[in-house]
Amino acid sequence: MDGESYLIESGEPIMQFEYQNPTRLVFGAGSLPRLGEMAGQYGKRALLVTGGGSVKRIGTFDRALKSLKDAGISVFECEGVEPNPRISSVKRGAAIARANECDLVVALGGGSTMDAAKVIAAAVLYDGDPWDMIFHGQAAPHIPTQALPMIAVPTLAATGSEMNCSAVISNEETKEKSFVSANCLYPKVALLDPELTVSVPKDQTAYGVCDLMTHITESYFNGVGDTPIQDRFAEGVILTAMEYGPKAIANGNDLNARAQIQWAATVALNGWINSGSGGAGYPVHMIEHTVSAYHDITHGAGLAIINPAWMRFAAQINPSKFVQFAERIFGFSANSPDDIECALAGIDRFESFLKSIGCPTHLSEMGIDAQLIETYAKETLRIIHDENGRLPALPPMTEADIVSVLRAAA
Amino acid sequence: MDGESYLIESGEPIMQFEYQNPTRLVFGAGSLPRLGEMAGQYGKRALLVTGGGSVKRIGTFDRALKSLKDAGISVFECEGVEPNPRISSVKRGAAIARANECDLVVALGGGSTMDAAKVIAAAVLYDGDPWDMIFHGQAAPHIPTQALPMIAVPTLAATGSEMNCSAVISNEETKEKSFVSANCLYPKVALLDPELTVSVPKDQTAYGVCDLMTHITESYFNGVGDTPIQDRFAEGVILTAMEYGPKAIANGNDLNARAQIQWAATVALNGWINSGSGGAGYPVHMIEHTVSAYHDITHGAGLAIINPAWMRFAAQINPSKFVQFAERIFGFSANSPDDIECALAGIDRFESFLKSIGCPTHLSEMGIDAQLIETYAKETLRIIHDENGRLPALPPMTEADIVSVLRAAA
Repeated sequence: MDGESYLIESGEPIMQFEYQNPTRLVFGAGSLPRLGEMAGQYGKRALLVTGGGSVKRIGTFDRALKSLKDAGISVFECEGVEPNPRISSVKRGAAIARANECDLVVALGGGSTMDAAKVIAAAVLYDGDPWDMIFHGQAAPHIPTQALPMIAVPTLAATGSEMNCSAVISNEETKEKSFVSANCLYPKVALLDPELTVSVPKDQTAYGVCDLMTHITESYFNGVGDTPIQDRFAEGVILTAMEYGPKAIANGNDLNARAQIQWAATVALNGWINSGSGGAGYPVHMIEHTVSAYHDITHGAGLAIINPAWMRFAAQINPSKFVQFAERIFGFSANSPDDIECALAGIDRFESFLKSIGCPTHLSEMGIDAQLIETYAKETLRIIHDENGRLPALPPMTEADIVSVLRAAA
Repeated sequence: MDGESYLIESGEPIMQFEYQNPTRLVFGAGSLPRLGEMAGQYGKRALLVTGGGSVKRIGTFDRALKSLKDAGISVFECEGVEPNPRISSVKRGAAIARANECDLVVALGGGSTMDAAKVIAAAVLYDGDPWDMIFHGQAAPHIPTQALPMIAVPTLAATGSEMNCSAVISNEETKEKSFVSANCLYPKVALLDPELTVSVPKDQTAYGVCDLMTHITESYFNGVGDTPIQDRFAEGVILTAMEYGPKAIANGNDLNARAQIQWAATVALNGWINSGSGGAGYPVHMIEHTVSAYHDITHGAGLAIINPAWMRFAAQINPSKFVQFAERIFGFSANSPDDIECALAGIDRFESFLKSIGCPTHLSEMGIDAQLIETYAKETLRIIHDENGRLPALPPMTEADIVSVLRAAA
């Protein structure tokens, strides 16, 4: 029976998957001072990667530095990683690490900082061009197999990068934004201290909530087969984000709301939700990546714009999962499993929620006009396409499909 | 702020936890023939641990043996592990492994076989009495720090032992049944092939469903603090078990139902549900362990008897979580967060579900009379008690409390 695929009566495949996630998760308000203890288990010379400077302004950087130094670790700094991290920053970080013989990388920042730190950790041990490691066209020229040990200390609840093996990097020269996924990129430790997120402003908190919710909806709506547990897990995280997200936005010092949102962000993309769902793709992310490669908007804001428009497109073709979403998230009662009115009503409510927490839901709100929509569609397909030239998704998307979604989001 | 505990306004602690689970999960119908490939990564001389013989009757044993031998692995057998695995079987298995210089342990069977195999893997590398590793009184004399690599191939969806670091072992001489938990006991690989479970008879399938549901309810009702995501995950697994359990019982060959139940059993006890919930204890398991140490009943059947009675006891003191359970699992509407009538109605429905799938819900149905109830209570507290001599749980239980629960379950 080896290797055969199994079909149940409805014709849907039975779950087949592998899962392993070796990251050690340390979760708790006030846990930042344990960074040195964690780092000391993996190295003596740390490259400390940071972003735009907020960690320095609010003192988090100094506290992290103290913890590392108290543990006898030498620290070399790579600061200034951009919100959409660039391959040039990866090269710069790898050069600093090499010059100082770093044996460890510590990321202190948001998803961009963590993503850059992961790819730096692999680039230090790779003699070729680090851009080789990033997927473009139909492959990555070099999937990394080794990396320095890396510790992730997120200061924003959003990407979930702290407990997965993926990163997204932009190429400022080619205007490409794409991903790498490799087992060697799992952080050794994810040190989650929700206290570090209390200073995140309302808009960035909202974009983070949208980011984590979109990670969930991507696997939920693009999954194939019968995955009842993963569906329930996905719905549980969405419901939790909708309950605690507004609390964290209303009162940034609500440490419990901050903790729940941070935990939601981590489980949204650590494999617990999508193991076995055999996701057909991440269309909303792929389209958003192109838009933000052109306009450098915050990823979470871009997702808030693209996702509802994509959902309305996909629901017309595969309504049943959207009906389930409307019923279980918003308590609607459908007339049938394919009740498109119910499906669309659920999407309307989802979009209203995004608006209610302050997310944009149209490109125009970000000052982006419709002029380049055909270009975004072409560029998206240049980065990733299946053997028929379509964007992997449920359903697969032609260039015209992408254009129609972007026009609806204009 | 290090080490302080954080309190939110309601007085509940904010989640603080660590999580790491290194087990590689390989899930899919038809995956048994991959056993040799997996095992070959860890050793050349495998101790193959099995239970009562069903794996031989239905050919699973021969298929596993072939896969191992095809991969060039020598196999030494330890068969006949009991349903409530005994420390004498552990000693016997360790002796076979030592005599044959095994460098790997493979468990092919249910929870008992996997639990025995874990402790055998540690006992091979420990010169003392293996019973030292099992918790009794207020500690285990020796918590193991090393073990041979172990691969778990479950043939029954029940305990979730395949993806955690715990085992339960009985001491036939002292009539004690207790646990060991240690990082070195995580299986290297959990190879889950739902096809291996299609031959499990209806009653054992039902007991397995009860076992996995009880793992969930233990952490759900004994958890402390605000854990909204874990609550939703727990409810999702319960709902899935209630949907697919009856299908697997009605038609043992329903491979999708078998797959969903097996996946439910794994996630019920691999840490995904209870990370952060800071569980106060596992009272239903602890009481059941004593009863089955005396009467050698199937663990899942014993849990079906104790759990509803315990739930009614605990709901009187902490009704709110039971109200949430009644609302989210059975769709009830409570008059208040502490609506005890609603809480009890939910427990009645839960008990009815257990009956509907063929589980016993009273000791008398297993031919066990009330004569030794005081003894079971005393023995339970002899195995485990807090500093006040009570059974760790929410609320902590005195000897009289345990007696009252057992009387209600008589």
